[in-house]
Amino acid sequence: MLKKEILEEHPDVDVVIRSTDLSVPENAYLLYEGLKDYGIETWVNNAGFGNYGSVADQDLKKIGAMLHLNIEALTILSSLFVRDYKDAEGTQLINVSSCGGYTIVPTAVTYCAAKFYVSAFTEGLAWELKEAGAKMKAKVLVPAATKTEFGIVANNVSEYDYDKSFGTYHTSRQMAGLPEVIFPHIHAMTNLKIKVKGAEAI
Amino acid sequence: MLKKEILEEHPDVDVVIRSTDLSVPENAYLLYEGLKDYGIETWVNNAGFGNYGSVADQDLKKIGAMLHLNIEALTILSSLFVRDYKDAEGTQLINVSSCGGYTIVPTAVTYCAAKFYVSAFTEGLAWELKEAGAKMKAKVLVPAATKTEFGIVANNVSEYDYDKSFGTYHTSRQMAGLPEVIFPHIHAMTNLKIKVKGAEAI
Repeated sequence: MLKKEILEEHPDVDVVIRSTDLSVPENAYLLYEGLKDYGIETWVNNAGFGNYGSVADQDLKKIGAMLHLNIEALTILSSLFVRDYKDAEGTQLINVSSCGGYTIVPTAVTYCAAKFYVSAFTEGLAWELKEAGAKMKAKVLVPAATKTEFGIVANNVSEYDYDKSFGTYHTSRQMAGLPEVIFPHIHAMTNLKIKVKGAEAI
Repeated sequence: MLKKEILEEHPDVDVVIRSTDLSVPENAYLLYEGLKDYGIETWVNNAGFGNYGSVADQDLKKIGAMLHLNIEALTILSSLFVRDYKDAEGTQLINVSSCGGYTIVPTAVTYCAAKFYVSAFTEGLAWELKEAGAKMKAKVLVPAATKTEFGIVANNVSEYDYDKSFGTYHTSRQMAGLPEVIFPHIHAMTNLKIKVKGAEAI
């Protein structure tokens, strides 16, 4: 589906899809190992989901999976990518945080705390790379409400009305920003359930 | 050892020690389940360790254990305690963050990001409890450098000189604050390797 959409606009691009559940930390290592034959220029940690509800009422199994995906897999993949590519010209790491990673949103305290982690980790890493004179750039993407499958997953519902729930929101296409996707360089984007096509074009 | 020290100062207190490795999330559930027969007034999530080193060089096995302990176990135990006790008069949850949970410290980016999580989670929870009119208070403890086993664990060394590494630091006794420990109420404090005696006296 994502591959088909990309190929419609960029028929010359070689799109490789790897499906894995990154809420299982071991899978993050396996995914990265499986990309050893590629030279990667941009890595986007986009995989993540949210949860609405009070801390007292939250489903701890879902929260555990959220922490493994939003925090642990992102940390493993960022660290492995930085380890291998930090001195490679033109490389960048983009971690998707959220406005909730800078301001705590009511009924989404644990999700926001996880995004505070993502923002602090990535800002700290950007500083660390700069101090070390590394060639890689680390960047945080901070979307406000964006119409994706996020609403469905975070609310445990089968349909979710962004018009009703938010006064304003972005589409995933708007969030993807600039239309000039910098192919044919090789990009990797983690993405679990939430499709933000072309986020590598930031 | 901790029990002996407490009993020397408070011989009438019933000190119950439960040893478990909270870097294994399942153990957090088991620990909490095992305390069902007590009525708990104060819960202190003090267990945690740090790590010094660049993101590129960090030992991901140690980082995984750190995220499970500092973030996941704290979230599980906070949520379970809040679920059962939020409407009980006089209850409080104290989560130990760090100055590094408000400012990123060089060479400790991942540790600080984890403490940003703890600060945001606990501040958000405090607000949520207040909004809901709950009786429980959630509080963040934010120590600066404190002389404990932290330095040894974070630096992977067998000895660590706080005088050499820090211009100024607190002792764990200073960090414990007020001497009037509010016995005989029942308190629970998680603590892995880092002994901060009497932290429940904040």
